[in-house]
Amino acid sequence: METYNQRRPDDWHVHFRQDDTLRQVVPYTARQFARALVMPNTKPAIRNAADVTRYKELTWNYSGQGFQPLMTVKLFDDSTLQEVMRAHRIAGVIAAKAYPFGVTTNADDGITDFTAPRLNQVFAAMEEHRIMLCVHGEKPDAYCLDREEKFLEVLCRITHRHPLLKIVLEHITTLAAIQFVKVTPNVAATITLHHLFLTTDDIIGGKLRPHNFCMPVAKRPEDRDALREVVFSGNKKFFFGSDSAPHLKGDKECAEGCAGIFSAPVAMPLLVEFFEEHHRLEMLENFTATFGAQWYELPRNESSRLTLIKRPWIVPQEIRGVVPFYAGKEVQWSIA
Amino acid sequence: METYNQRRPDDWHVHFRQDDTLRQVVPYTARQFARALVMPNTKPAIRNAADVTRYKELTWNYSGQGFQPLMTVKLFDDSTLQEVMRAHRIAGVIAAKAYPFGVTTNADDGITDFTAPRLNQVFAAMEEHRIMLCVHGEKPDAYCLDREEKFLEVLCRITHRHPLLKIVLEHITTLAAIQFVKVTPNVAATITLHHLFLTTDDIIGGKLRPHNFCMPVAKRPEDRDALREVVFSGNKKFFFGSDSAPHLKGDKECAEGCAGIFSAPVAMPLLVEFFEEHHRLEMLENFTATFGAQWYELPRNESSRLTLIKRPWIVPQEIRGVVPFYAGKEVQWSIA
Repeated sequence: METYNQRRPDDWHVHFRQDDTLRQVVPYTARQFARALVMPNTKPAIRNAADVTRYKELTWNYSGQGFQPLMTVKLFDDSTLQEVMRAHRIAGVIAAKAYPFGVTTNADDGITDFTAPRLNQVFAAMEEHRIMLCVHGEKPDAYCLDREEKFLEVLCRITHRHPLLKIVLEHITTLAAIQFVKVTPNVAATITLHHLFLTTDDIIGGKLRPHNFCMPVAKRPEDRDALREVVFSGNKKFFFGSDSAPHLKGDKECAEGCAGIFSAPVAMPLLVEFFEEHHRLEMLENFTATFGAQWYELPRNESSRLTLIKRPWIVPQEIRGVVPFYAGKEVQWSIA
Repeated sequence: METYNQRRPDDWHVHFRQDDTLRQVVPYTARQFARALVMPNTKPAIRNAADVTRYKELTWNYSGQGFQPLMTVKLFDDSTLQEVMRAHRIAGVIAAKAYPFGVTTNADDGITDFTAPRLNQVFAAMEEHRIMLCVHGEKPDAYCLDREEKFLEVLCRITHRHPLLKIVLEHITTLAAIQFVKVTPNVAATITLHHLFLTTDDIIGGKLRPHNFCMPVAKRPEDRDALREVVFSGNKKFFFGSDSAPHLKGDKECAEGCAGIFSAPVAMPLLVEFFEEHHRLEMLENFTATFGAQWYELPRNESSRLTLIKRPWIVPQEIRGVVPFYAGKEVQWSIA
């Protein structure tokens, strides 16, 4: 049987949530990835060393051996230098995540002003101690499809002020963001699985499809094609972050549906299929297992590999109450 | 108590559906409007004189006195000249409605080629006999937010070939469509209630809101503002058509939600509130009771008037299984 084998990949952006959901979704990531950067916009949020330690332990309980959660803290208007530095030194946080106010799930306590002095003290300390700044790059008060592009102005100001602060612009969706990242030395970007597949048409172009709805919203076909192109080109500033974000079915299929796509169960199988289909399978290992580690200045995963076999399966309509990405469709590759 | 009184309005675009829904939704239109142009994309579709007569009778059964349904037939690739002319002469149809293939609810049997010879024979006969062509103006294979603008090229070809064929471009959503209608003598347009309120942000800009989802999808704030401006300017080529389109709650809040907004229950109350808020209440009667009749070359409603009183009410969360537009919100005006 045909197989595909590579260095065990990393997921540089994942939402594990909390409580039951945490327990149920962690294994889907852990069985494919060596490491995952775990987002801190849980309820309650992860903001200091104690939160991180507690959450990391829970994650470990559910992941089994051989998986390493990489931890982040969430930034607030009133986050302090001390808080972030302690989370880094004591709890091993490698990144702090900034959500603009109100921009997505659990961001109602997000940053209102990226130029505030207190926040800039935090940025300065992160710059000095090489702690990554991860940013959900959308300007919340702009028209939904313009938000990412409009945020680039904000990002530009941060990079000018903190030229050595390393930044990851998360889950980018536009040609504008790609161009910005290409020319800005201290900014890299994650790209999700679903943004390589979807355009706005897959959400509101026919039937309304809540399970394709996430923030940032998928954009135009030209934007999606630009994402594909940059990923296939092997540009090392663009690496994989699934942004896998489970919501219970009832929280998606309702009058006010939540943003987020649960892609963990199909992540590597669908990536292999997608890269193979586009005759770029040789680029997948760098995208998922090299470029991210390099940007984060971490060693690549040397000891462990991942094997997939070409055995088709139908993605379940529902996994533990959550409708996964690609539900009901056939995927050609299975995790061995 | 403050009142508002005008010539009884017309709704130049409404979906009554069939069966139980027909019975349940007709009264909401009939209690406000003197006449409504009833769309033919029912299941099964209304395509000939017999269909029209049967459907008109049903509508009358449910509407009570004082309401006149104005009838349409749906055009197909294989519609014949004879079929359309008989529907006009025998069943009194005043318009034929063209849906591009696959563009919205029940359009899977829509027109695949607007330049086909058979269809152009139909258009020529409609031109000669002054039967209106109503068009859902979207190019189905374009990106969802470009579809209306891209369809203008198709419309342009129709108007060149049939310069005397009167056309209504239905439920327009873009500045591009407004500009096209303004400069094209034989094309007018309907504007809905909800497109005066919504932008894409109200569908995918925060939570996903299926009850704000319709085709054409609401566009950018600049587009919505242009719709408001043209309506407030009193341009007689732009008149009211609600496109009220009920779907059962379960067909909206699901994995593949239907397009359509049920606005009939709030139509005139919310229009009065909206025009009043914008200090343009004096423009509402023309928009709802004059310009449409003029374009269709029908007399205005002389005998009947509509009165609203300023008495706030909360729009119900659900009306006969359907979530109406503005559900749960307060409207200032009530129908007397």
